[in-house]
Amino acid sequence: MNPIADLCARIAEPDLEASREASRRLDDKTKPLGSLGRLEELSCRIAGMRRTPAPPALEKAIVVMAADHGVAAVGVSAYPQEVTRQMLCNFAAGGAAINVLARHASASLFVVDMGTRNPELLDERARRVILNASIDASGTKNFVNEAAMTREQALTAIERGASLGEKLADSGFSLFGLGEMGIGNTTSASAITSLLCGARPADVTGSGTGIGARARLVKIEAIEKAIQRQRPRADDPLDVLHKVGGFEIAGLVGLCLAGAARQCAIVLDGFITSAAALVAARIEPKAAHYFIAAHRSREPGHAHLLEQLRLRPLLELDLCLGEGTGAALALPIIDASLKALHEMASFESAGVSR
Amino acid sequence: MNPIADLCARIAEPDLEASREASRRLDDKTKPLGSLGRLEELSCRIAGMRRTPAPPALEKAIVVMAADHGVAAVGVSAYPQEVTRQMLCNFAAGGAAINVLARHASASLFVVDMGTRNPELLDERARRVILNASIDASGTKNFVNEAAMTREQALTAIERGASLGEKLADSGFSLFGLGEMGIGNTTSASAITSLLCGARPADVTGSGTGIGARARLVKIEAIEKAIQRQRPRADDPLDVLHKVGGFEIAGLVGLCLAGAARQCAIVLDGFITSAAALVAARIEPKAAHYFIAAHRSREPGHAHLLEQLRLRPLLELDLCLGEGTGAALALPIIDASLKALHEMASFESAGVSR
Repeated sequence: MNPIADLCARIAEPDLEASREASRRLDDKTKPLGSLGRLEELSCRIAGMRRTPAPPALEKAIVVMAADHGVAAVGVSAYPQEVTRQMLCNFAAGGAAINVLARHASASLFVVDMGTRNPELLDERARRVILNASIDASGTKNFVNEAAMTREQALTAIERGASLGEKLADSGFSLFGLGEMGIGNTTSASAITSLLCGARPADVTGSGTGIGARARLVKIEAIEKAIQRQRPRADDPLDVLHKVGGFEIAGLVGLCLAGAARQCAIVLDGFITSAAALVAARIEPKAAHYFIAAHRSREPGHAHLLEQLRLRPLLELDLCLGEGTGAALALPIIDASLKALHEMASFESAGVSR
Repeated sequence: MNPIADLCARIAEPDLEASREASRRLDDKTKPLGSLGRLEELSCRIAGMRRTPAPPALEKAIVVMAADHGVAAVGVSAYPQEVTRQMLCNFAAGGAAINVLARHASASLFVVDMGTRNPELLDERARRVILNASIDASGTKNFVNEAAMTREQALTAIERGASLGEKLADSGFSLFGLGEMGIGNTTSASAITSLLCGARPADVTGSGTGIGARARLVKIEAIEKAIQRQRPRADDPLDVLHKVGGFEIAGLVGLCLAGAARQCAIVLDGFITSAAALVAARIEPKAAHYFIAAHRSREPGHAHLLEQLRLRPLLELDLCLGEGTGAALALPIIDASLKALHEMASFESAGVSR
């Protein structure tokens, strides 16, 4: 059995009895039945994932995977490609949005280089702090002309992501927040979304980092050409992933699969991480039971992905930053859902009439 | 000048220049322009309220005002009236949902008796912990037959709420989260909403604590009768408030006005607190500049109130618990919005290309 098939075989359905028992306990708490709405649904889902009716507080890791994209050469981003590397230095220095929001959520932050260009130009702090799982220090190829990566590279990236997930679970983390960084990666996510959701590129391609209408047309055309030339098979998620994906997206697929195998809650961020999550769910549908959608991005393709994953996001804050920022913002709500289950008094203990 | 007119005269427009400067600073942070979406809007609004482009972390008080409602006699709730008092004891013991969520949000919790029945039956801890601002220990009258309270009582309750708001601001609190408890108070909030929003009672009356379809019809009929018999003048918010309001709602009106006068952020919870906020905004429209909508309740009337207040809520979690629980859940997002403004690196300081 290959390592990924082995991983998928270890993904179990959540424990429905644990969910039901959590729900019964919530009904005993001093509040009208069901009045905590989606917070109750969330704590019951987590009880099922963790296979216990009263899961302890989740240990939270946010994993930001970074890579460069050959398609950036076409001019699909408002920022030059070196911004990927500059942002890695910013993550290492603690000044990016995800640093602020991960600290705010009391989550540990892990930044992983899955294949960024010129890693030798990273400053010393970044070289020390960032985990190196790089597949290719040239980034992906420009997928308008050729496959972004080989099928073997895609498998290796998935395995490295999964291996990190296993290590995090071994270290006691029970929630993985997904994050990403990579100039050009909304183009890759749009191509994946178009293929896996059966939508026209124009309907799932947005303005990414804030490009204008003309650059958006260039972006759409790049995706259309890539699909025309490479003909990725929509029913083969690995074919889609290696032809139009990115190394960070492939790494996140592995993290999703390992997280699900280890019964961790997996908190999706926005468009790019959700594209990775849908690839993972197409490889092994049971993985989706462990997904929590944090927010709905302004990127138009995100809604298509969430629909396919049948997830309703917790937040609608019109974010489109990435890095895992939306996932981080949802963590206090997830924590709160478990605290309600643990800390609220029951009608009996509080002497309140039903 | 009467005390309430004096309070209203002290409510200023927010400082637009402080908002604009906060917005400029956000544009210098290492993220695509505007990519933090509503988080940016929120921090800019708070900068305006606090009249400084970089407001320090807000000191958070959640104020739960409680009262009993004569209309409960008609059978409009799934719970007996003594639950108001029992829940006060639960608040004092720390076991209610708002206790859990206020702790989670690092907010101080204040519980105020604005007029609950049989306060002599409160346990010793509750008597020690709960602030007594009771207008009438019989609760309001049944507004189906007569005015819930006199106009003078409404004014006194507003003044007591305002006085608490002033004290909290004097103590350094800069954010007030609104909460309430009172068996029967969704009936009062529905009556207020119907009058102030010009909507039919049936369209703004929900199932409250979880009553069935028949009890809901009784509730609607009670409101229709009350409006028919008492003819509250929709253009006179005090007339509406004293005829079909509640003591806790009147207290919250005062808290809103004092909070706005003291340039505090006022975080609305669900249906009942938003009804109080709309009464406050009808008394002094400038107060609404200080309101933040935390969530959209399952109660159908809440959407009408939010529309009148022109507020889009931060959360849509299908809550309908009250107590200030939705307000508490929104606090980490509000805190995060200010942290982004304070803690993120600028393009220049991080050496990231624009």
